[in-house]
Amino acid sequence: MDPIICTVDVVLLTLQDDALKVALLKREREPYQGVAALPGGYIHVESDADTHDAAMRMLRDKAGIVPPYLEQLASFSGPARDPRGWSISIAYYALVPSALISQQHVLLADVDSTLQLPFDHKSILDAAVQRLRSKSQYSSLPCYLAGETFTLPQLQKVYEVLMGEPLNKVSFRRKMDEMDMLEAIEGKMMASGAHRPAQVYRLKAAYRKRLQLLERGL
Amino acid sequence: MDPIICTVDVVLLTLQDDALKVALLKREREPYQGVAALPGGYIHVESDADTHDAAMRMLRDKAGIVPPYLEQLASFSGPARDPRGWSISIAYYALVPSALISQQHVLLADVDSTLQLPFDHKSILDAAVQRLRSKSQYSSLPCYLAGETFTLPQLQKVYEVLMGEPLNKVSFRRKMDEMDMLEAIEGKMMASGAHRPAQVYRLKAAYRKRLQLLERGL
Repeated sequence: MDPIICTVDVVLLTLQDDALKVALLKREREPYQGVAALPGGYIHVESDADTHDAAMRMLRDKAGIVPPYLEQLASFSGPARDPRGWSISIAYYALVPSALISQQHVLLADVDSTLQLPFDHKSILDAAVQRLRSKSQYSSLPCYLAGETFTLPQLQKVYEVLMGEPLNKVSFRRKMDEMDMLEAIEGKMMASGAHRPAQVYRLKAAYRKRLQLLERGL
Repeated sequence: MDPIICTVDVVLLTLQDDALKVALLKREREPYQGVAALPGGYIHVESDADTHDAAMRMLRDKAGIVPPYLEQLASFSGPARDPRGWSISIAYYALVPSALISQQHVLLADVDSTLQLPFDHKSILDAAVQRLRSKSQYSSLPCYLAGETFTLPQLQKVYEVLMGEPLNKVSFRRKMDEMDMLEAIEGKMMASGAHRPAQVYRLKAAYRKRLQLLERGL
């Protein structure tokens, strides 16, 4: 059995100023000490139940975050991606509302900007963004970026940022109705600019931990 | 850095007698020596370019197969799945027409039968079957099980076995037209029972190595 370097890396995504951002941390150790990279690290066989557990630990310890959504993305491997030797990274992606992110801990970078990242972290980031955008078309996934409560115009904006195009308001609301995953918070309205106050919603309890899917996309 | 056992396991799927089958190999070594399991093994850091390459090597060396389709499924990890210690398996699934499988090398088992498999191979198998069935709804993936050439009734049967339900012939043909991935082999017809001979098709060259997707599922 050949020795292989096993790490877990997490693409932590959030929305800020209507743009999709990735959270980066300055690396504490070599290689690439001081360089901004995806949060990650070695698996601890004494304490981690699996790689999902390791990803949760890294977000908690390094960024102070317990994400509402964390999913395995893919593994990345080979002799050249890490200067220390043949390595495997099990990559995850997490979604968090920006209110949960302390900017003392992390740097937020626009995913569409030209980012120079160490290792193959740019490929991992690109794969995560592609997965998120593709899954947003037919699921409740974007709600994890919207915060605990939101109005329908706010939620529509989140979907629009992820899908990169304006959505028709009537058709968007019909799709949200079809997914039947939202509940109105009684008596709670939110004013926005010159518009009438809008009803505030949240995810129904059943969908706070698991995705709801659309049979046909948006 | 804690030592971790890194393996690659492959769920090799085929169709035989209108049923989805998985290829199993008797294990040559402990643990579980002599027990039928998914083909798999250690990564060889001297020769494998990545885990995809390792999966191709295992299918070639252990089952004599070069699959037309191989995709990473997910990684499975933890302290208990392998009696040797904390381990990660990077799992792949491969699709092959049954004509490519030599039954001297492998055992074929119905994926829907009650299979007793070592390690967490049953979970890996179930995840692969679920991925294949879900992806079959909106892609050319099932074509890799149909062989190099096929008639439309044969291809429809493959889709039906994977999706577990009969499909409407007119709507099926419209979807295949929409994907625009098939080409008729001029002058080649195939007779089947009492039916009129049917035109023989194959995948267009562009789709023999990559999937074609339907915007809306079948």
